[in-house]
Parts: sequence; structure tokens; C-alpha cells
Amino acid sequence: MKKRWLVCTDCRSSFPFRYDGGMCDCGGALLVQYDLEHLKKESSRDVWRKRPSTLWRYHELLPVSDTNAIVSLGEGWTPLIRMSRWEKKLGLGRLWVKREDQNPTGSFKARGFSVALSLVRETPASKVAVNSNGNAASALAAYAARAGLQAFVFVPRDCPGMIVEESVAYGAHAYLVDGLIHHAGQVVEDGKGEMGWRDLGTAKEPGRVEGKKTMGLELAEQLGWKMPDVVVYPTGGGSGLIGIWKALLELKQLGWAEGDLPRFVAVQETGCTPVVDAVRTKADRLTPAGDNTTSKPTGVRVPNPPAGNLILSIIRETGGTAVAVTAEEMEKAAGQMGREGISASPEGSAVWAGLLRLHEQGEIRAGEQVALFNTAHSLKYLPWPTPKGVPIIRSYADYRSLI
Amino acid sequence: MKKRWLVCTDCRSSFPFRYDGGMCDCGGALLVQYDLEHLKKESSRDVWRKRPSTLWRYHELLPVSDTNAIVSLGEGWTPLIRMSRWEKKLGLGRLWVKREDQNPTGSFKARGFSVALSLVRETPASKVAVNSNGNAASALAAYAARAGLQAFVFVPRDCPGMIVEESVAYGAHAYLVDGLIHHAGQVVEDGKGEMGWRDLGTAKEPGRVEGKKTMGLELAEQLGWKMPDVVVYPTGGGSGLIGIWKALLELKQLGWAEGDLPRFVAVQETGCTPVVDAVRTKADRLTPAGDNTTSKPTGVRVPNPPAGNLILSIIRETGGTAVAVTAEEMEKAAGQMGREGISASPEGSAVWAGLLRLHEQGEIRAGEQVALFNTAHSLKYLPWPTPKGVPIIRSYADYRSLI
Repeated sequence: MKKRWLVCTDCRSSFPFRYDGGMCDCGGALLVQYDLEHLKKESSRDVWRKRPSTLWRYHELLPVSDTNAIVSLGEGWTPLIRMSRWEKKLGLGRLWVKREDQNPTGSFKARGFSVALSLVRETPASKVAVNSNGNAASALAAYAARAGLQAFVFVPRDCPGMIVEESVAYGAHAYLVDGLIHHAGQVVEDGKGEMGWRDLGTAKEPGRVEGKKTMGLELAEQLGWKMPDVVVYPTGGGSGLIGIWKALLELKQLGWAEGDLPRFVAVQETGCTPVVDAVRTKADRLTPAGDNTTSKPTGVRVPNPPAGNLILSIIRETGGTAVAVTAEEMEKAAGQMGREGISASPEGSAVWAGLLRLHEQGEIRAGEQVALFNTAHSLKYLPWPTPKGVPIIRSYADYRSLI
Repeated sequence: MKKRWLVCTDCRSSFPFRYDGGMCDCGGALLVQYDLEHLKKESSRDVWRKRPSTLWRYHELLPVSDTNAIVSLGEGWTPLIRMSRWEKKLGLGRLWVKREDQNPTGSFKARGFSVALSLVRETPASKVAVNSNGNAASALAAYAARAGLQAFVFVPRDCPGMIVEESVAYGAHAYLVDGLIHHAGQVVEDGKGEMGWRDLGTAKEPGRVEGKKTMGLELAEQLGWKMPDVVVYPTGGGSGLIGIWKALLELKQLGWAEGDLPRFVAVQETGCTPVVDAVRTKADRLTPAGDNTTSKPTGVRVPNPPAGNLILSIIRETGGTAVAVTAEEMEKAAGQMGREGISASPEGSAVWAGLLRLHEQGEIRAGEQVALFNTAHSLKYLPWPTPKGVPIIRSYADYRSLI
């Protein structure tokens, strides 16, 4: 039996692994910890090389205990593409793009739900719910379909209609929320008791971060178990960045990756930049950006990231930073990535624009190795009408009145 | 130096490998042959297991001689997903779906162009062209961008606008042709001399089939080097089916896969069924379906597949068949696959509908192992206006008058 614990990112309490409520009693987000000393003695990173090329090759560092419960659609082990022309142009040692657009459902969100729904299958829950700016909704929908569970997804009404279309195609119960992602989260929060929904929102349970962690495990393995110098990641709820950091930290603790942790750079879009603001003012704690956001409805539009303080500490402790890029810079970046053959989502384009900004500001040094993440496929963001029959609500009471 | 030959599928002439004109002097399509006896002696399938998870792990069976010329965006080694619920429902031994939608550019077409453009890079050509019902256009566009070549794509005007959008995003010169795929091919044919385009249309050169062959190599490896009983594939130009057959045949000749070749089943949509018609009438040679097609503008709408006779002989020699499915059956199939968490393209849905038809007709036996291919991602086919500025032409003369 695998030894696992849960640790609260707020009050630091530690207790045996369980997958029931999802959060600490103090309201803090939970992270899984493993018996790394034991793993170090009993195994080695070499066993992973021979495993199938999905994220489940790393099951020793994933919280699922019953491998028969695994819900898989072929997620993970995405390509890491070297961008030689731009390396030369920018004077970098190596520039990599990890193509998360090649996951099932066309985004990195597949990873989190593969792990979370495998955990849900070990419980009596039959209904799962998420608030999302889009990609988490369609990923939950696909994995719930695969697992034979009912999915309920709540998406701000201005988010990409095509992703709502995709969620419906996977059989999800979809709702548009007249508000932002935290308003959608409130609907789930208010309804989960009465409706029996398992809340799989960002930081509401520890499984999704573990799934996203595999981006970091893969990055290290694909780089020959060496750390890059810099990781640039689009930051909305932040669980992708947290996952990659956690992966590299665990590998370092195991002695299975060489070098220091990379500097983590969070990229946000001008108009909703709580992380960038906190880094600039050297604040310890994050101040929510409020509801008057002006950025586009993408994965980085999260005014109040639930695990914001952990994001800040990762950036601080690794000597990283945070940058805000404009819609115009993102559009230009999408064109530049397209001309390299890569279909860049707005979030992936933000990362590319962030790299150019860092380079301009001298925050990336000549010869450094930089890893970018293209978190989703661009086509999912083309303007598209919401599929007919998807209701618009403002609250759980609205939802309640419709069913 | 790798020994390679070319063999004409029509006149059976054989000559040393070259990558210049692309076709046999007799007008027949060319296939690459390798020194399998030598490979069998010098190597084993076990070397592949340790290689990176792209289609280039099989480079011994690919025609590229200079690995520095490889143009890669992370193609191949796509997931093979087991459909347990439907296995039980249909009484099959195993039912698999290979998720070609997880390739770069969201379709299996990436494979062919990765190999073809790697070959082009070994020549002086700087411009590449293709006629396509969509996915080949965007795949060529992406790989040409990656290779630093100029791409020219010619697509029937009623084909999916979103795929044209994608091609433009990768920097291709895109044109809509007022006609069907063979009319688009005529534009390339008429213009290639004057314009210096390298024609990469189906069966116009031997590289793309070799790339698509890797679907079969992967299938065999993922099945533990055992042949399935049946392969069901959507058939337009047919080079995907030809590629998979060629892969399994080569593995059998090498002694590297156990069992007999599977029965190959070609699936087409009612309204354009030249292969189905020829199989039903037991014809040796294929009769073009003519220009009055009524099927949807997808990858299987190819009235006159250039290598049609080879497709017929593969079906005949493996004891396979061909089935036509209706638009209604395809729509229902897309829903069924969606409820399993898989985003099915119209072509992938046709294959699923074809499976159900075979099962109903008793042409698949209880306990058999069946492999289906979902060739592309469904979202690419949503109705979408053609991007502004893409001209509509009828002929090469029209094109000539525009530039």
C-alpha cells in the first residue's frame, strides 16, 4: 500500500490521505505528500522509461491506489518541441515548447481530471461538478463520460462557446453563469450539498494538482533529468504552475533530477493581474483583482486564485517573477508561434509574449534554457455561438428553479 | 546507408530510391521498399521500445536518410484506447480506437507530412503544394512552417472553413476551389511546372504513405506485436489504409508481428462510394464516382482515389470488405463516441457506424479484436466562415490571374 499524506497549504496541518471533502478544515487547499525516502530506496527513475507513454507511467508519485480505477483517455507524455530559430534570435541556450494542446480534449486540463476522476471512482460519488473558463469544463465532461459519471459544468457566459459545445458533446450538463469564474464556483459551492455534486474546482481537492504535476515530471524526463533554468507558465487559478513546481521539488528531494529548481514566471493578461500586482508590490499575500476585469475570457482570467499565496511563495522562493502582457502582444505571439507550426491558445500565446518581454527586460540571460507551455489548441477559442439549450444562470437558486 | 527502392503499384517496375518527380513514368503511384532481410539480421523490434515516442522511433522503416533533415512537431505515438463498454455490448474480444486526433494539427495527416517534408528538405525545393479536403492542407501548412518552406493549399470551397482558418494561421497560401478534390488537384498539376511547387497530393509521391504507415507500426507495437483481426478505416484517397496495410505486411515479412494480416474494411459515406461499389460488384478496377457526389465535404469524399486499385486488392487479399454509411448513422455514431469521451471527426464517426453495420450483418465474429481509427478532432468540422481574403478559383488560369 502506497503511503500518502495530505498537507494543508495554509495551516500546514498534516493527516493521512483521504478523498472525501477535498479541503482542510481551516479552508486551506490540500497537497498530497508521498514517502519519498521509501521510494528513493525501493525504486529509481529508470523504471518509468519502460512504461507506457501516458502520465500514469509516474503512478508512484500519483495518489491513486487502485490502478484498476484509472480513468484514461490517453493523456500526458506530450511532445516537447525545440524552437531553434527563436533560440538563435533571442540568444538562448535552449528554448522548448511543451505541446499540451495534444492532450485529449486539446488542453492540459485532461491531466488533472484523469487523476481526479480516478480518485472519485474509489468513492461512492456519481456526480461531479466544476466551475471553469472553458477547458476544465470540456476535460471534466470527457473524463466523466469515460468513467460513467454525470458531469455538471458552470462556465462564465462570455467564455469560448466552442468549448461549451465540446462539453455538451461529451454529455455534460452545461450552464452559463452571468459572471466570472468565482461566481460560477459559488453556484457549485451552494449546490453541492443538495445535489450531491463532488466539487472538482481549482484547489477544492488535491487530485487535479497531482495530475498537472506530471507536466513537470515529463519535462524533467524529456530534458534527460536536468532542470531547465526558467519555466514560463500562464497563470489563472495557478494549479498548473503549482503542479510543475511540486513535480520538480519532489524529483529534487528524490535526487532524481540534477540542478536547482528553475525560476518560475507567471504570465497574466493586462486587465486581470492579481499575481503580477502582488509580485510587483512584493506583497506576501494576494489581493483579489475584483470583478471589473477587462482581460479576455481565457484561462488566465481568474481575479481571485484560490491558492494565490502558494503561487506567490513559489515565485519568490525560486527567484522568479510575473509579467502582464497585452491582448495585442498575445495576438502577435500567436502569429509568431503559428509560423513555427504550433497552434497556440491565448494562454500559450501569453507565455510566448511573456518570454519576449522577459528577454527585452534582460530577465533571461544569454545561454539559458527556457521551457514554455502551450496549454491548449487555438481552434477552441474561435468565436462560436453557445449551443442551443444551454441555460444562463446567475446563482444556484436560478439553477434550482430550472431543474 | 539505408537501402531503399521504389516500386510502381501499376507496372511493378522497381528502381533505386529517389525523391524528385514523385510518380512512375507510367503514371502509377510509387511505394518504398526496404531491405527487410538485412534489417531482420541486423536489428530487432526491441530497439524501437527505447526510442522517443514519435513516429521517428521507426526510422529504419522510413525513407529519410539524413536524420538531421527530420521535420517534427511531435507527431505519432497516439493513444490506443480500449472501449470496454462497447466490447461487452457487441460481444467483441477487444475493441480499440486509435486517437489520431491527438496529433499535431489534430489529425493523422501530420504523419504523412512529417515524413514527406523531411524528404523535401533533402531536395532543392522551397515550395510545396497539396489538394485537400481540409486536414492535409492544415498539416502541410504546419510542417512547411516548421521546415521554413512555402505552402500552397487548394481546398474545395465547401470544405470545413475552420481547417482553412488553421492553414492560414500557419502561414499557408490558401485557395478555395469551386469543385471537388480532383479539381483542386488539377490546379496543382497544371501549375507545378511554372510555379515550382512540389506536388504532395495523395499518391503523387511516396513519402506520405510511409508516414501514415506508422499508424500500423504503432498499432502492432501497442498490441504487443500481435495483429488484430479487423482494421476499420475511413477511406477517401486511401493512403491511410494503404499505409497501415504496408506496415503490417512489412512486420510480417520481418517476422516481427504474430498472426495473419487483419481483414481491412474501408468505410465511405453514402453519396460518394467508389470503393464500396467496386467491392460489391467484385470489380478488379475502380470506377470513379463522378462529380455528382452528395456526401458531406469530409476526408472520405474522394470520387476518384488515385490508388484505388491498390485499395481494392488490399481488401480482396485480406478478406475484408467495404461499407457505406449514411450521414444520419455518422451523426449518431459521433454522439456514441462522445459519450465515451472521444471527440470523433466525421470520418472517425463513419468508422464507428461502419463497425455497427458490420456487427449487425454478422461480418465481425464474436470474440474478435477490432481496431478503429478516429482520424481527426471533431471541433475542426464545425461550420465556420472561410477566413477573409482566401480567394475562390476554378482553375490554374484563375490562380495565375490572381498573383
